[in-house]
Amino acid sequence: MCRRDAAAPSRYRAQVRAAPSGVPAERGADPRCPFAVSAPFSRRLPPLPPPRRPCARSHTGSPAAGGRRGAAPVLAALLGLGAALAYGERRRRVAQAAQAPPPPRFPVYTREEVGRHRTPRDRVWVTHGTEVFDVTDFVELHPGGPDKLLLAAGGALEPFWALYGVHNQPHVLELLREYKVGELDPNEAPPAPADTRDPFAGDPPRHPGLHVNSQKPFNAEPPAELLAEQFLTPNELFFTRNHLPVPAVDPETYRLQVEGPGGASLSLSLPELRTRFPKHEVTATLQCAGNRRAEMSRVRPVKGLPWDIGAIGTARWGGARLRDVLLHAGFPPERDGEWHVCFEGLDADAGGAPYGASIPYARALSAGADVLLAYEMNGRELPRDHGFPVRVVVPGVVGARSVKWLRRVAVSAAESPSHWQQNDYKGFSPCVDWDSVDYTTAPAIQELPVQSAITQPRPGAAVPAGELTVKGYAWSGGGREVVRVDVSLDGGRSWRVARLTGERPAPGRAWAWRLWELRAPVAAGTELEIVCKAVDGSYNVQPDGVAAIWNLRGVLSNAWHRVRVTVTR
Amino acid sequence: MCRRDAAAPSRYRAQVRAAPSGVPAERGADPRCPFAVSAPFSRRLPPLPPPRRPCARSHTGSPAAGGRRGAAPVLAALLGLGAALAYGERRRRVAQAAQAPPPPRFPVYTREEVGRHRTPRDRVWVTHGTEVFDVTDFVELHPGGPDKLLLAAGGALEPFWALYGVHNQPHVLELLREYKVGELDPNEAPPAPADTRDPFAGDPPRHPGLHVNSQKPFNAEPPAELLAEQFLTPNELFFTRNHLPVPAVDPETYRLQVEGPGGASLSLSLPELRTRFPKHEVTATLQCAGNRRAEMSRVRPVKGLPWDIGAIGTARWGGARLRDVLLHAGFPPERDGEWHVCFEGLDADAGGAPYGASIPYARALSAGADVLLAYEMNGRELPRDHGFPVRVVVPGVVGARSVKWLRRVAVSAAESPSHWQQNDYKGFSPCVDWDSVDYTTAPAIQELPVQSAITQPRPGAAVPAGELTVKGYAWSGGGREVVRVDVSLDGGRSWRVARLTGERPAPGRAWAWRLWELRAPVAAGTELEIVCKAVDGSYNVQPDGVAAIWNLRGVLSNAWHRVRVTVTR
Repeated sequence: MCRRDAAAPSRYRAQVRAAPSGVPAERGADPRCPFAVSAPFSRRLPPLPPPRRPCARSHTGSPAAGGRRGAAPVLAALLGLGAALAYGERRRRVAQAAQAPPPPRFPVYTREEVGRHRTPRDRVWVTHGTEVFDVTDFVELHPGGPDKLLLAAGGALEPFWALYGVHNQPHVLELLREYKVGELDPNEAPPAPADTRDPFAGDPPRHPGLHVNSQKPFNAEPPAELLAEQFLTPNELFFTRNHLPVPAVDPETYRLQVEGPGGASLSLSLPELRTRFPKHEVTATLQCAGNRRAEMSRVRPVKGLPWDIGAIGTARWGGARLRDVLLHAGFPPERDGEWHVCFEGLDADAGGAPYGASIPYARALSAGADVLLAYEMNGRELPRDHGFPVRVVVPGVVGARSVKWLRRVAVSAAESPSHWQQNDYKGFSPCVDWDSVDYTTAPAIQELPVQSAITQPRPGAAVPAGELTVKGYAWSGGGREVVRVDVSLDGGRSWRVARLTGERPAPGRAWAWRLWELRAPVAAGTELEIVCKAVDGSYNVQPDGVAAIWNLRGVLSNAWHRVRVTVTR
Repeated sequence: MCRRDAAAPSRYRAQVRAAPSGVPAERGADPRCPFAVSAPFSRRLPPLPPPRRPCARSHTGSPAAGGRRGAAPVLAALLGLGAALAYGERRRRVAQAAQAPPPPRFPVYTREEVGRHRTPRDRVWVTHGTEVFDVTDFVELHPGGPDKLLLAAGGALEPFWALYGVHNQPHVLELLREYKVGELDPNEAPPAPADTRDPFAGDPPRHPGLHVNSQKPFNAEPPAELLAEQFLTPNELFFTRNHLPVPAVDPETYRLQVEGPGGASLSLSLPELRTRFPKHEVTATLQCAGNRRAEMSRVRPVKGLPWDIGAIGTARWGGARLRDVLLHAGFPPERDGEWHVCFEGLDADAGGAPYGASIPYARALSAGADVLLAYEMNGRELPRDHGFPVRVVVPGVVGARSVKWLRRVAVSAAESPSHWQQNDYKGFSPCVDWDSVDYTTAPAIQELPVQSAITQPRPGAAVPAGELTVKGYAWSGGGREVVRVDVSLDGGRSWRVARLTGERPAPGRAWAWRLWELRAPVAAGTELEIVCKAVDGSYNVQPDGVAAIWNLRGVLSNAWHRVRVTVTR
């Protein structure tokens, strides 16, 4: 393998500049890829820091081989941009390397040791397979931005590469090897077996990029900077809001019960659900009632998990329509009086009480409401954390009603008696506290109000002067389309209109979010308070401030989203 | 007739205090009546001013007879409260009067002269039939509040008494005569005939209590203090938003055209519309897009009529369902693709272009959307100002789509080409001005956002210390129920929950407003900034401030409503 090449950075710059007359410079930049960049890449090259030796537990080969390796040209190609440019050059160099001495043996590290290298100050290490790489000097060069690469710092690259297909090219891995500093210890003890007395011991493995708000039950959200990079949220990064341990369901023996007055009782196996009813696909955003609760807690403490802006995600759900199943059971398409459709999950507390929720009968039976008994998420089998094998998906409605690990659908004259329907997931006045709250006085949250948030830049960021790109998401409940997003760079004194990306939804079926973007010139040395607010098709808007929508459970947090950043030179 | 009785006020107080042991003091106070009072009436008696003689053009009888007449007991009964209490006493005194000398002849006044007496400083005169009354000293005693009585100052009582049935008792008129100061001049010239070249010459007469924002075309709203006094807004006080002269329609020759691809063309007479289709009744609130525009203009000038909070009203509408008529014409109940139902009015501009608007096909055909071709308003034939003989009523949608004087219903693949659909009644960002506006970039307003306003007390009022009653209305578009109204007395720093009055609507069909009330102790000498904000069933809320929802046409003004008052001792 070739060694560090001090001349590489300047050569790389020359290559990029020369691109217009040869291979297009943007060729490696897939517009669907979050690593795509718009400004000339050469502008972003920082001066290289001096070489530095990593710490090493044991040296089994040449120390020289373990030092800071690789160089800007290969680095630039590492995660996509410039890959095509660099590839010819790489082939030439690899051919040279074939004539070189055999590659050195590398120091051996444990995963725990790798995990200590998460910041540029501690060096940024990542693993791929059994190999360890020091990519510190590539962090600032990463075409998708340093923040994206740092998500993998101290751990494995694979979970992130799995999400971003641009890495799935042979030369990317080949180029990564330039940064190799070690091998994972083959003798490292496997993780301790889970405590079988722990009800959460059977929970599935999760993506290391998730920000965990609670481990047991598992509640986690994706990093905000990844949230609006793709219209469909990758399953692995989709926020997980579990109330109880994840049930282990055998799809062979799984049965879904359907019952209630006015219809026959059914017991459906998974193959029956898949084959007896047409598969219906709906792209819908699910949002937790507690999304953005952390902002509400800053006004006054609330009870609940401190979700940032990531308790929201969008997927293409596939399954049977709840309407079709209920009509099949003989329930009428319309029904006078107050009726509800109640759901129970297979997740249960220590006393056996399952998670439960309900929706109005009219929504469940409406052809236009697109309520699903979903068994697919983004074209794949439902992940265990998202309800395998079957979950409800109620588009336009708070996530709490989209019951996972569904075991029972019951038509009833009353709402679900579940704690989560009766005594949680309701909104109250700011004047209501835990002494005065009466849960019977507020309706269970169903449709959610209009919402938006800024995913880029992140709070406290230092952004370069020039053209600033602000990105985010916007969504409203009830199928109401987002018709406009206003963005302010001065705390709400003046506004600009963001560009909504993607396609307009069908009327009344705007189940999925709109991503949006605003580009604006910003001057060095200024402080910006970036604010966004969305407007939906009923011209509902977000409230200006958090204080007047504060509520003791910290739900329905949809005030203007504010992000303060500093503009550097 | 009896003369002024100086002892009356104290006797009246004694009567009220004694009431609990005899006739119930509240017996005369109909809870549905706006004149009902809750505090002991005796508290509100001000000291009597010294007697004062009215000005008089000609004296045709005893001057003494024209002076300040009547006394508190009869005054109190005049407009309802205490009527039952006072009636026995009155009968006794009337019997005495029968033995007295014949009643004096009165001075004669023109209507114009009466019209100069509109304030306590100028004396408050009103007329009934051909008689003139000076009710100055009764103003503060009026059980419904001084503001209500002052609405009639300088003019006729009948339009107001017609709205409030409590006055329709013989003794009320009898007692009013105590205040007689004159007769209307029988020789007064009638109003000049309308200029027949004026396209508005054929407009109907209007209620004198309306606040007129524009005479031609006629645009007027009821006084805010009357707005939330009754759940159903009296036809005479319902806001009128005309874009053009009121057409004169002969119900004998009237025809409604129904047409468009996919259905038969129909031409329906009024009797056919009434008899061929079931009569359907819906209680629905209509609100003008410009309601509360005056508040928006205070931030920055906007183009449009300066509506206060009264461009909203609620009526029981009766008519044929648009769905039934369209199904009868053969249009399908559901239709793929984008379809609209367009309406044209008989009101047209000088070039013959009619008023027009459209709604989405799905709403027009939805059984749950309750769209009417209405021919009744609050149990009466549609008034001319409200669309006689037939208007559209689209519940939950901006008033502009409820086309009046309906002449044509056309199913179309495009929205109405009307100016009012294409280039008006749309919402824009605060950053859009008349140079940059592009009407194609915003959707036509259909469903309106959540709204509320304070109708009592009025801005700038001096309210007595003790228990303050705050009243108002709240409503949301799309059939979304109002689930809560928060009220603040300190500008939004702290909140209380108002009591919603009336019944809960059917789920998804909350077409009518909810009236609300809050009672709270207030201390003398304080300044209050009363604020209200409503929450709807989708937990949408009103924005805090006007500036961020400002738009060049001043529509969709639904920020928190704020009223400043002073608390007196």
